[in-house]
Amino acid sequence: MKKLLSLLFITIAFNSSCLGAQSQPAALVFQSDFGVKDAAVASMKGVAFGVSPGLSMYDLTHEIPVFNVWEAAQRLVQTAEYWPSGTVFVSVVDPGVGTDRKSVVLKTKSGHYFVTPDNGTLTLVAEKLGIAALREIDEAVNRRQNSEESYTFHGRDVYAYTGARLAAGVISFEQVGGKLEPKVVTLAHQQAKIEDGVVYGNIPILDPQYGNVWTNINRDIFGKLGLSAGDALTVKIRRGEKVVYSAKIPFANTFGNVAKGSPLIYYNSLNNVAIALNQGNFAQSYEISSGAEWSVEFRK
Amino acid sequence: MKKLLSLLFITIAFNSSCLGAQSQPAALVFQSDFGVKDAAVASMKGVAFGVSPGLSMYDLTHEIPVFNVWEAAQRLVQTAEYWPSGTVFVSVVDPGVGTDRKSVVLKTKSGHYFVTPDNGTLTLVAEKLGIAALREIDEAVNRRQNSEESYTFHGRDVYAYTGARLAAGVISFEQVGGKLEPKVVTLAHQQAKIEDGVVYGNIPILDPQYGNVWTNINRDIFGKLGLSAGDALTVKIRRGEKVVYSAKIPFANTFGNVAKGSPLIYYNSLNNVAIALNQGNFAQSYEISSGAEWSVEFRK
Amino acid sequence: MKKLLSLLFITIAFNSSCLGAQSQPAALVFQSDFGVKDAAVASMKGVAFGVSPGLSMYDLTHEIPVFNVWEAAQRLVQTAEYWPSGTVFVSVVDPGVGTDRKSVVLKTKSGHYFVTPDNGTLTLVAEKLGIAALREIDEAVNRRQNSEESYTFHGRDVYAYTGARLAAGVISFEQVGGKLEPKVVTLAHQQAKIEDGVVYGNIPILDPQYGNVWTNINRDIFGKLGLSAGDALTVKIRRGEKVVYSAKIPFANTFGNVAKGSPLIYYNSLNNVAIALNQGNFAQSYEISSGAEWSVEFRK
Repeated sequence: MKKLLSLLFITIAFNSSCLGAQSQPAALVFQSDFGVKDAAVASMKGVAFGVSPGLSMYDLTHEIPVFNVWEAAQRLVQTAEYWPSGTVFVSVVDPGVGTDRKSVVLKTKSGHYFVTPDNGTLTLVAEKLGIAALREIDEAVNRRQNSEESYTFHGRDVYAYTGARLAAGVISFEQVGGKLEPKVVTLAHQQAKIEDGVVYGNIPILDPQYGNVWTNINRDIFGKLGLSAGDALTVKIRRGEKVVYSAKIPFANTFGNVAKGSPLIYYNSLNNVAIALNQGNFAQSYEISSGAEWSVEFRK
Repeated sequence: MKKLLSLLFITIAFNSSCLGAQSQPAALVFQSDFGVKDAAVASMKGVAFGVSPGLSMYDLTHEIPVFNVWEAAQRLVQTAEYWPSGTVFVSVVDPGVGTDRKSVVLKTKSGHYFVTPDNGTLTLVAEKLGIAALREIDEAVNRRQNSEESYTFHGRDVYAYTGARLAAGVISFEQVGGKLEPKVVTLAHQQAKIEDGVVYGNIPILDPQYGNVWTNINRDIFGKLGLSAGDALTVKIRRGEKVVYSAKIPFANTFGNVAKGSPLIYYNSLNNVAIALNQGNFAQSYEISSGAEWSVEFRK
Repeated sequence: MKKLLSLLFITIAFNSSCLGAQSQPAALVFQSDFGVKDAAVASMKGVAFGVSPGLSMYDLTHEIPVFNVWEAAQRLVQTAEYWPSGTVFVSVVDPGVGTDRKSVVLKTKSGHYFVTPDNGTLTLVAEKLGIAALREIDEAVNRRQNSEESYTFHGRDVYAYTGARLAAGVISFEQVGGKLEPKVVTLAHQQAKIEDGVVYGNIPILDPQYGNVWTNINRDIFGKLGLSAGDALTVKIRRGEKVVYSAKIPFANTFGNVAKGSPLIYYNSLNNVAIALNQGNFAQSYEISSGAEWSVEFRK
């Protein structure tokens, strides 16, 4: 009977391990400026697959313009919240490969992880999701074996490798490496504001596929205008001091509320204020671009 | 002994749940006109991953030209049959976001599911695979939590969410929402025909990578010409009334049957008649494009 | 008691099958010249998913320039070693579809599998990883059912199908088809060499995203120059006989070791010698391209 009982316990232990093994690893989401024409992205995934074949890997984008850290920062904050807590993002836009920029893993207060060179890529996720802790990757441990001779592809040898180990539970966040001050390298950027009933913001990035113009003005600030759907606002878009666009545009809940080809102000998928032409390309039609020199104001 | 037996039953129950959990969910296949430069596609996948981390997600394409519902319809019918019954396709080409176009799930007679705005996207899969049933997505239930304030990204908040829940078995097809008449919004398109031994069709779409010209003429109709490999046909391609191309071309089983650079007529991967240059670009060489105004005839 | 024991054995058997089913299949990695604008890639994956829904599929690239077998060969060798032994690569760049080029599976000495038309695609993986065995795909067995009428999409009907069956363990390597001589179709290409202290090589391919110039000179040959980081070399790049670029450039461990915009010689991610501008585009700046006519020499 004792023997039988211990058999049973073994059986149950088997079950548990079986069930345990089924606990899904965290998602591993890649971003880079590598493009998809050569084998760089596939090599990162091969390294990650070698760490754990059960990993679920996804792509954010590999079409970040080369070395454009600001756009990398934007794309991360654009998607992070739609992934569950625990998701591991690996972002490799690294103009300073081989310099003393630190290789880090950020854990945000929302429980997301970001594996990246600390070169400004973390600016917006740190601001929006909050810094829970920051650790420097210890390359003595968290570097692909036999990669010591390669100095130029940290995306594959350090970031993908570490991200995969973290997502698969091979290492804990603490095992990434030493704790750093909870402060990331930050790219300068303006904040939106409201003054005397006028909302001021800038155009950090476009919605490139449709030509919609996205602002950095969130719902909290814009909401202070107390608008109803259909209310028209005077919109001015400036490049430096020069007014490039000025018109009265209705605030609408969605594209279909205005005629085809007509402009509208709406909340975009990030809950920020945006400007578009219904089924048209606003940015192209009015030659609007994005960046620090582009500002926008909304007046009732 | 009784205790032991119940332990055993628990053990077996554990096993069953273990085996049950292994039953693979259906594939979830995404299509859109979002491009892959920003985070829109990744946000849809993040939402789906949040529904069930065990989902297997694939991309059909995200390079549908912006708002081109006809091309969306083509790409769906091009691939659907190569996926097993039960596969869930999420297609988001949605010029009318926020209008009263319905959000639906089509179940075809082949057992495939299509989650999409009902704006013509379903034209060809409904025609080819048959309508088993059509349901309208009930957004009171099948909408991502806390997304009520967002009106502009139904792809993420409604379609990806509902598709994921359906693919993962979180909801049944019946739980999508109310049943609609088995009729989808259909884009006008011509049918191929044979008359007096001449086959008439049109050019619904090109094979963009290779420049092959695809027609809407299927094997049933073309087969009535009773051709053998090597038989030459007079081919005329018209834009409106104007003949853009006219030549005698052999019907061949495969590209390698004609010399490099030579034209051929063949059955493409959809089993429709197509025209190509072996290792050349037919469409570019003769300035052929696709659409309702492009027609083609084949004469023995 | 006997009954109880047999129940226990069943239980344990259940466990084993459960654990067994968890053994992860090999990765299945796709490469083609199909692009991602239409449904060709998705159709290959649909066929593979139909073979086994548990497969882990990845993309190397689908942006190989149309019919460019040499680039297909390069991309395979660029990534193969970063994937575990057992990984199955399906590469479909097939200008000769429907001719008598053989459909094969190569097993390399490293334990990787390559499913492809034997048209030169295997040139570099065979050279670098070694041929363990070569088998011809027996289409009587290893072809998608009901695809006999289609002659033009072997990528979907033969290669994806066979690759999926191999990766999923549905067939063994031996079941692919008959054994061939261990010799693949090889594209002519030059080998790098050192003579009188001067290293000669060519430029088989560029790093298209960043404009870095990659050579075919590996670490073994270049190492014979006995360089230290910072040593400057005279670099000459020729197109045919004509010198297109000539300058003294430092050998550096990594990009960050030279000023922004300055040139450097370094080992790239393949451990081959490469030339770049730190944060610039060398190939574009000096109008360098790749191919058999482009050669390079390094002199101390």
